[in-house]
Amino acid sequence: MKNLKIAVIGGGSSYTPELIDGFIKRAHELPVKEIYLVDIEEGKWKLDIVGELAKRMIKKAGLDTEIILTLNRKEAIKNADFVVTQIRVGGLKARAKDEIIPLKYNVIGQETTGPGGFAKAIRTIPVILDICREIEELAPNAWLINFTNPAGIVTEAILRYTNVKAIGLCNVPIGMVKMVAKILNVESSRVKIDFVGLNHLVWGQKVYVDGKDVTRRVIEELCDGASLTMKNIPDLKWDKAFLESLAMIPCPYHRYYYMMEDLIIQEKEAVSSGKGTRAEQVMKIEKELFELYKDPKLDIKPPQLEKRGGAYYSDAAVSLISAIYNDKKEIHTVNVKNNGAVSGLPNDVVIEVNAVVDKTGAHAITLGELSPKIHGLIQEAKAYEQLTVEAAVTGDYGIALQALIMNPLVPSVKVAKQLLKDILNEHEEYLSQFR
Amino acid sequence: MKNLKIAVIGGGSSYTPELIDGFIKRAHELPVKEIYLVDIEEGKWKLDIVGELAKRMIKKAGLDTEIILTLNRKEAIKNADFVVTQIRVGGLKARAKDEIIPLKYNVIGQETTGPGGFAKAIRTIPVILDICREIEELAPNAWLINFTNPAGIVTEAILRYTNVKAIGLCNVPIGMVKMVAKILNVESSRVKIDFVGLNHLVWGQKVYVDGKDVTRRVIEELCDGASLTMKNIPDLKWDKAFLESLAMIPCPYHRYYYMMEDLIIQEKEAVSSGKGTRAEQVMKIEKELFELYKDPKLDIKPPQLEKRGGAYYSDAAVSLISAIYNDKKEIHTVNVKNNGAVSGLPNDVVIEVNAVVDKTGAHAITLGELSPKIHGLIQEAKAYEQLTVEAAVTGDYGIALQALIMNPLVPSVKVAKQLLKDILNEHEEYLSQFR
Amino acid sequence: MKNLKIAVIGGGSSYTPELIDGFIKRAHELPVKEIYLVDIEEGKWKLDIVGELAKRMIKKAGLDTEIILTLNRKEAIKNADFVVTQIRVGGLKARAKDEIIPLKYNVIGQETTGPGGFAKAIRTIPVILDICREIEELAPNAWLINFTNPAGIVTEAILRYTNVKAIGLCNVPIGMVKMVAKILNVESSRVKIDFVGLNHLVWGQKVYVDGKDVTRRVIEELCDGASLTMKNIPDLKWDKAFLESLAMIPCPYHRYYYMMEDLIIQEKEAVSSGKGTRAEQVMKIEKELFELYKDPKLDIKPPQLEKRGGAYYSDAAVSLISAIYNDKKEIHTVNVKNNGAVSGLPNDVVIEVNAVVDKTGAHAITLGELSPKIHGLIQEAKAYEQLTVEAAVTGDYGIALQALIMNPLVPSVKVAKQLLKDILNEHEEYLSQFR
Amino acid sequence: MKNLKIAVIGGGSSYTPELIDGFIKRAHELPVKEIYLVDIEEGKWKLDIVGELAKRMIKKAGLDTEIILTLNRKEAIKNADFVVTQIRVGGLKARAKDEIIPLKYNVIGQETTGPGGFAKAIRTIPVILDICREIEELAPNAWLINFTNPAGIVTEAILRYTNVKAIGLCNVPIGMVKMVAKILNVESSRVKIDFVGLNHLVWGQKVYVDGKDVTRRVIEELCDGASLTMKNIPDLKWDKAFLESLAMIPCPYHRYYYMMEDLIIQEKEAVSSGKGTRAEQVMKIEKELFELYKDPKLDIKPPQLEKRGGAYYSDAAVSLISAIYNDKKEIHTVNVKNNGAVSGLPNDVVIEVNAVVDKTGAHAITLGELSPKIHGLIQEAKAYEQLTVEAAVTGDYGIALQALIMNPLVPSVKVAKQLLKDILNEHEEYLSQFR
Repeated sequence: MKNLKIAVIGGGSSYTPELIDGFIKRAHELPVKEIYLVDIEEGKWKLDIVGELAKRMIKKAGLDTEIILTLNRKEAIKNADFVVTQIRVGGLKARAKDEIIPLKYNVIGQETTGPGGFAKAIRTIPVILDICREIEELAPNAWLINFTNPAGIVTEAILRYTNVKAIGLCNVPIGMVKMVAKILNVESSRVKIDFVGLNHLVWGQKVYVDGKDVTRRVIEELCDGASLTMKNIPDLKWDKAFLESLAMIPCPYHRYYYMMEDLIIQEKEAVSSGKGTRAEQVMKIEKELFELYKDPKLDIKPPQLEKRGGAYYSDAAVSLISAIYNDKKEIHTVNVKNNGAVSGLPNDVVIEVNAVVDKTGAHAITLGELSPKIHGLIQEAKAYEQLTVEAAVTGDYGIALQALIMNPLVPSVKVAKQLLKDILNEHEEYLSQFR
Repeated sequence: MKNLKIAVIGGGSSYTPELIDGFIKRAHELPVKEIYLVDIEEGKWKLDIVGELAKRMIKKAGLDTEIILTLNRKEAIKNADFVVTQIRVGGLKARAKDEIIPLKYNVIGQETTGPGGFAKAIRTIPVILDICREIEELAPNAWLINFTNPAGIVTEAILRYTNVKAIGLCNVPIGMVKMVAKILNVESSRVKIDFVGLNHLVWGQKVYVDGKDVTRRVIEELCDGASLTMKNIPDLKWDKAFLESLAMIPCPYHRYYYMMEDLIIQEKEAVSSGKGTRAEQVMKIEKELFELYKDPKLDIKPPQLEKRGGAYYSDAAVSLISAIYNDKKEIHTVNVKNNGAVSGLPNDVVIEVNAVVDKTGAHAITLGELSPKIHGLIQEAKAYEQLTVEAAVTGDYGIALQALIMNPLVPSVKVAKQLLKDILNEHEEYLSQFR
Repeated sequence: MKNLKIAVIGGGSSYTPELIDGFIKRAHELPVKEIYLVDIEEGKWKLDIVGELAKRMIKKAGLDTEIILTLNRKEAIKNADFVVTQIRVGGLKARAKDEIIPLKYNVIGQETTGPGGFAKAIRTIPVILDICREIEELAPNAWLINFTNPAGIVTEAILRYTNVKAIGLCNVPIGMVKMVAKILNVESSRVKIDFVGLNHLVWGQKVYVDGKDVTRRVIEELCDGASLTMKNIPDLKWDKAFLESLAMIPCPYHRYYYMMEDLIIQEKEAVSSGKGTRAEQVMKIEKELFELYKDPKLDIKPPQLEKRGGAYYSDAAVSLISAIYNDKKEIHTVNVKNNGAVSGLPNDVVIEVNAVVDKTGAHAITLGELSPKIHGLIQEAKAYEQLTVEAAVTGDYGIALQALIMNPLVPSVKVAKQLLKDILNEHEEYLSQFR
Repeated sequence: MKNLKIAVIGGGSSYTPELIDGFIKRAHELPVKEIYLVDIEEGKWKLDIVGELAKRMIKKAGLDTEIILTLNRKEAIKNADFVVTQIRVGGLKARAKDEIIPLKYNVIGQETTGPGGFAKAIRTIPVILDICREIEELAPNAWLINFTNPAGIVTEAILRYTNVKAIGLCNVPIGMVKMVAKILNVESSRVKIDFVGLNHLVWGQKVYVDGKDVTRRVIEELCDGASLTMKNIPDLKWDKAFLESLAMIPCPYHRYYYMMEDLIIQEKEAVSSGKGTRAEQVMKIEKELFELYKDPKLDIKPPQLEKRGGAYYSDAAVSLISAIYNDKKEIHTVNVKNNGAVSGLPNDVVIEVNAVVDKTGAHAITLGELSPKIHGLIQEAKAYEQLTVEAAVTGDYGIALQALIMNPLVPSVKVAKQLLKDILNEHEEYLSQFR
């Protein structure tokens, strides 16, 4: 009966306790026999620490799920039912570069959007495609749940270039639901949001409580100062006239698009003030977290993990896995093929959208024609994403340049060229496809 | 708390006990205060009989829902939360004509498909649009649940020409789920079918039990003689080579398209043998049913009603109403706007498809590109439906002729002209738009 | 300067003098150096006769174009600038079977439409794809002008399964322009018709003379008895009410769809009266033609050729070649990828439509959304065509069966099975892919 | 025979001699009886000067076309065959503001792109729609040839909100053809460019000479310093890596998108150096031109007009009129409904594209799916255009704000708000719809 094998690629991540916590909470409906935590040599020390914590958590929960720590990825993947990817190619050091480089050119420096997201994508996609080749060979029926950022672009690469059954997942939509619930002071289970867009560029077109449209009220609350953001994004307030005329809920990451200058100033200040980029802050948090994790008495997910930024992550991930495994026909907000959900986008591009999830996967719910208020930016960002995937796979300099030029946060060809030069130089060791 | 008002147009129908039974079964989740059963003068005697039965059923169930019988449609509609239409313009006599006329020309004579369905559509649409005008005025927030046949065409007319929030419903998909469950000997709640097509022209692309694809097995069972049909459609067996290469489950009505000649022969035999058309058989059944209904001791839905052909009708209808009212986000198979679900059809045409139902309505789930094995016939039938709606609204002879020519069951222009002449003559009293 | 090499596959065809005549007439703009007429062993006697006539025609015209007769197809194709295919796999004997078999089942028996067209397609496509492999290898820059029937289906197969630059061509559109010009008593150069549809299923949506819409007048003339047909299609008159409400000009082949029963009767009478099928009539005509061609004094295209049915064929073919070669940006009615011209059809299916022809090929002119009066039938026929191509390539019995079922002229699964059985039996020698 | 009536709205424009010159050159194929030059009261002095010049030009050419000068727009429009609009709401003074305002916020200040183009659009659209109402009433069969900038947005407004038969025209595409011809040193009639995009955002996807693809060579020439720009756009050189990877020819206006910072610097320098914005420069040029025009001995188009920036304008305009009148089926690059030409854009939005022009209008030639290299920017700009049209028609502040935010040259919500405030203030007299 207890038969599921889970493979967590990047198992040494500081997020892993979140995920373990998720499996523990859903143990009644998810008969997990084995969880393989796999990492690379450089991550072994983290894997060991977090792996032991995971074992203590499982034990404390009274479960007999086996936790296996390994550096052998193929062993982890073989016959897995679900593969979860939470890797970071180049680690936080590479992320720090992604955040710093653009600031030289007065451009947003951010992990997943702008040139930083581009750099992360071209580093990550080759590794993910390697993993997918192994899944194709060793676990062809496995579901791949991809959180690896930039999650939308990475999922697009997977679905375009492999036969792996993959769903991209992000904690932004679930986070928005929880935050809206808090703002409205209702249970989050009563809140439904009609999400549409791309990963980290998703709007809530309508917000409902118990099926009643409360969008206008949420907008008013946001204008009145209610907070809807994430740990890694400054809580700049939305302009009232803007939000009222948009008549939708932007996601926290939209600040990079709609409040570009203010955020560039903030980012620069963070660096010049010695506070450091978000990557540098996370390094400190991680250090503290791993210190915590070492404590042999710790056998639950420590509350400090929330600062890390991955709130609701386990909720989103494990409930998605459960929806698939248990054929729940539940609605989840995921990154899947458009397939006609949004008019004007091809069937085969990946969008972030509400989808019905069952044993056969995630099926986008139709939305029809979008308002031009958001359609133009979605299309522009999607073109950037398509070019980025192609650049990552081919290593073609010209396509990479065109990708950066199409990025909504890059102001000109000149800046794009400078950025690309720096990115290719600074991350050279991870970009062998460009040699 | 008990606050819902339901208006049933065509409340004198022999089906009404089904519907009342449905409301009784769902009373725990649907706080129905009033059910208005409304009918026209000619139907008053039926309304009186079935209305009294309804009252006895409610009483027996221990509910305090009020049943109101009326000939005043506006009174019934005013401030209704849900309007249910189950009318038959011209009654069973008109249906009998629809079934007989085509046989003269060696064409399928059937209530909802072929020229019979066309005739029914052009009689019915003007009446339905009148009802919708009243809903727009008197109950603009009401949901219209339309069972009136041909349900797909009628729903297309409503959504194209009015602002009424309407969902078309048919018992074929739910019937197929139940029959497949029976064939496989499993609970029907474990069966899911990926339906797509048009009303009475819907295919099950895949059949799942607990999320596992069992399509091939169902096809084998059908080839081996398992029955999947409805009371009003002869249980002709499917050709094995056909079904295996189709690799989907046709609906019972597909026999009219795939086994045309055999069914024409059967229909002719039914008439010549004195057995009568289906309408004539139904007249007898109805007569018996109303005799039964008169019995003051009868206070439940009589089992004989099942012979009438409306099996699972209450299930489909009341569970749909409950999914809306309770914001269930459940999957129902309904007639709604395509909105991108099927590639190649415009967003604004009505299809029969799995949809997520919540308080805001029914939202089709994306399917992408269909196999040409079914796409061509869907497109042809949809073109016929569009022309039929336009003909019904404009009363344009030429468009009516083109509609009949486009009908997949009409072999030629010559036959179409003869059919149209007969239809316009025989149903003249209901077709004032064509004068 | 005189540098063009033309390869005519099926060069022994009785049509070849048409084609040679076309090259002679356009010699001022088409510097043809060599015309390779290639045929198969069985056709050698025809090739010799018609080849000698071609040489006499060229000589008489005072040209120095070289005519080369060969059975070596690769030699003919190598470095050709234009390849013209006018083959008939199985010859007129196979055609006679295509015309006879369906009549057994009360179905239209016709060369290119209905089951006859299906049989011809699955015989022909493998041979055409072989030719295309040779073109890919030996003349990758050549343009393939495909007249081989069913021209639309064959062109779809080429564009779907090869990299050959191909345009499908038929003499029906140009014939309609000429006939309409005759009906209106104007020069055909002043007539423009907005064609749309599929090959042998093409409508003239509007007819213009000098840019003025005269569609209504042409319809009136057709209703009053004006003839618009082809040698091989009986000149049955169109129904007035039908044509007026269609408000477009059907092509001659549409009679098979709109007047099915009458044509089945005519076809059966032709057979029972000893007049024979069209194939049998053509055999006689061909015999006479080849007798004529033998005459060493004949050095022009004989007027009797017109009876054969290929009127305007040289006009269409050579003027298309010239439009490409001379980069004319002229409008031709051709079989090309839809590419968005007709809404609701995928970009990559072949339609028959007005297109701008220049050195880079034929580019469909946009038409937008079609009237449902024709859209449904186009979609149904296109689904049939897609299935037919797939059946021809894979040799899959089930797909072949589904193709026949989807054919608008096949009434039921039962008949489709019988037809398929006969077709596979009777043409077994040409259908090795089905073994 | 000489029967055409032309109405030129904004007839007092300094461009009018171009247009008159065009009619003179095409007199052999365009039998123009009357040209009405109509202007508003403020423009009367210009109308008088340029009108007299026009009369002298016609006389010198030996034509008997009548030139009528009037302030009565309805008189000019009544029964016109072609209406040409070349108005500038607010005159060059308003343009100067459009160019200056954005610079305050470090944003491109330009007549037709960026916030300047937005301001021009919302001033212009109400006036154009008024003109269209008069055309609907007084000359319903007239063709409206719209050069009024921003030509694409204005044409979209016309086609969306009126029934006027309108084609938008710009001299950029023809200018690009002429410049490429010059670069390649060939006759411009031998050059063909596959244009696609939006007005002032159009790319040449491929360049052909005599049908041969020379795109790569043109790109090399541009990289080597060949000039391809317009009088009003600084001739900044394209980056080689960018242009080679784009593999298409950008239009001169693309510099505003691809070289944003450099152009902002240039614009600021022009202002600070006293050279003035382009509007101010044009004021001087216009002053000189009208001095010239006054000369009673001047009876031809003065060569100095070319400095004004409207090169090839008469060519484009009058040859388009002639293509329509003479049913030429010629290819022109115009602003028309997409209608399927570009996948992913709705049928009913206006794009700039090659189209076949005949008496029934301009019909876009299909292009299929565009490269993401340009598709994203086209979609973003189109969304901006749609919002701008809606803002101009409704006077809705929120939609105007969203339009500016969607403009690719506006960096943030904050800047958009400031820009909108200034635009509404500075142009208040022309923006009554916003009150």
